[in-house]
Amino acid sequence: MQRLADEARLAGRRIGLVPTMGYLHEGHLSLIDEAKKRADVIVMSIYVNPTQFAAGEDLATYPRDLARDEKLAQGRGVDYIFAPSDKMMYPEKQLAFVEVERVSRLLEGEFRPTHFKGVTSVVAKLFNIMKPHVAVFGQKDAQQAFIIGKMVRDLNFDVEIVVAPIAREKDGLAMSSRNVYLSEKDRREATVLYRSLNLAGSLVGKGEIELVRVRSEMLKLITAESEGKIDYISFVDPENFERIEEVGSLPRVLALLAVRFGKTRLIDNMYLNAHGS
Amino acid sequence: MQRLADEARLAGRRIGLVPTMGYLHEGHLSLIDEAKKRADVIVMSIYVNPTQFAAGEDLATYPRDLARDEKLAQGRGVDYIFAPSDKMMYPEKQLAFVEVERVSRLLEGEFRPTHFKGVTSVVAKLFNIMKPHVAVFGQKDAQQAFIIGKMVRDLNFDVEIVVAPIAREKDGLAMSSRNVYLSEKDRREATVLYRSLNLAGSLVGKGEIELVRVRSEMLKLITAESEGKIDYISFVDPENFERIEEVGSLPRVLALLAVRFGKTRLIDNMYLNAHGS
Repeated sequence: MQRLADEARLAGRRIGLVPTMGYLHEGHLSLIDEAKKRADVIVMSIYVNPTQFAAGEDLATYPRDLARDEKLAQGRGVDYIFAPSDKMMYPEKQLAFVEVERVSRLLEGEFRPTHFKGVTSVVAKLFNIMKPHVAVFGQKDAQQAFIIGKMVRDLNFDVEIVVAPIAREKDGLAMSSRNVYLSEKDRREATVLYRSLNLAGSLVGKGEIELVRVRSEMLKLITAESEGKIDYISFVDPENFERIEEVGSLPRVLALLAVRFGKTRLIDNMYLNAHGS
Repeated sequence: MQRLADEARLAGRRIGLVPTMGYLHEGHLSLIDEAKKRADVIVMSIYVNPTQFAAGEDLATYPRDLARDEKLAQGRGVDYIFAPSDKMMYPEKQLAFVEVERVSRLLEGEFRPTHFKGVTSVVAKLFNIMKPHVAVFGQKDAQQAFIIGKMVRDLNFDVEIVVAPIAREKDGLAMSSRNVYLSEKDRREATVLYRSLNLAGSLVGKGEIELVRVRSEMLKLITAESEGKIDYISFVDPENFERIEEVGSLPRVLALLAVRFGKTRLIDNMYLNAHGS
């Protein structure tokens, strides 16, 4: 891959990377479209990276279907698929890690303390293997996208980070490879995440500035209309990912939540535009 | 620098990086020679990186003389000097760090717990800024060279790491920018580091396999012939930097030591070839 990247660069071609864990859905495929706008050679990585899963998480059961993924990715215009084995990615005991401190411990990091360390380290590896000019991530994993952006700035990776909007099912559920885990009932109820975010957007848009009240309305809706167990409903300043309790003078805030349906943990998020913004 | 690196690469020229903290001596200059054997464009970075110094260390007093360094480096064949300000290297609060676990906590890491995290992070930044094909480090900082090699392998940096032999003064003292701190008396006594390593090499070469006995002979020599305070005298397997107490079946072991003369802390090391190797 490094030689391939060097040759593409020597030929003056721009390399676009779309890193995924496979089991592709329209969300992933829309990242390809974004990459194609900005690069000539599109590489998709498909790798379920073990170091970002903790013991007891769904590493073993994470859905995989490489043959189908290859067909979908190539159909959408991917030039190269990089689907390495664990042995290729970690030929020796890995000791070097990239960590973005502080932000990696908040929100998702409170529930998955080693998750982002695994993510940033494998993305650093992918950047060094693929040498992309641009890499596209999904807004669905908003905290991940922020953390990778911070890693790129702090460590001077010469890679442009593009964050593509969340792809949603017709009923609003954010697309996720993990949605296949949901029972029929949980799948129906899971739309409450999107509806609660819309409710938040509407409240803040109408001038609510106390986010504790917004959270309480979201919580009421989620508990009334589902059996989902809420890990968090949080609001951050999108510029620095610091948690906020008031809209203040920000033009918009980012609302994020994580809710468990049975063993399936779903996350979603939405920018809330402040009144008058 | 990134544009410069891209242009050099587009022109098919190999980039060699020599990272230093400046105040150049023959040790640094010999790294340039090694780089020139393997690359066409030689970049030297001169940067006293604050994140690898702990509070109470010699960050403020570390010797600096950029004008002299530039003259010496250019005289030896350096094409570009990269001497950034702290503001350029750390324009915002740095949160992303590269750490090589375990090895960074041993030896030097016991006495300077945050040192190698600062080193690996700034070297990762320099690699991303300079995009070298090859980077040359000195064997003087043997543990640093090992840790950077491990970082490069684990994070797939496409950079060849070359480790150049220790440059020594006529009386054997390893060259170091910190040698200027030494009083005349300490400077004379400091040669005992090299002599103790030679003693170790002679003992192991003659068949001594118990390294605890080798250490005790080195310690005896150092305390008899100097007022140096020993931080450590250690032996590691050069392949993995794990501490060993016996030569065993290894063809060679690496002896490392750190000794303080007044406020000046000196390090040195030597490969000890086993009897019959």
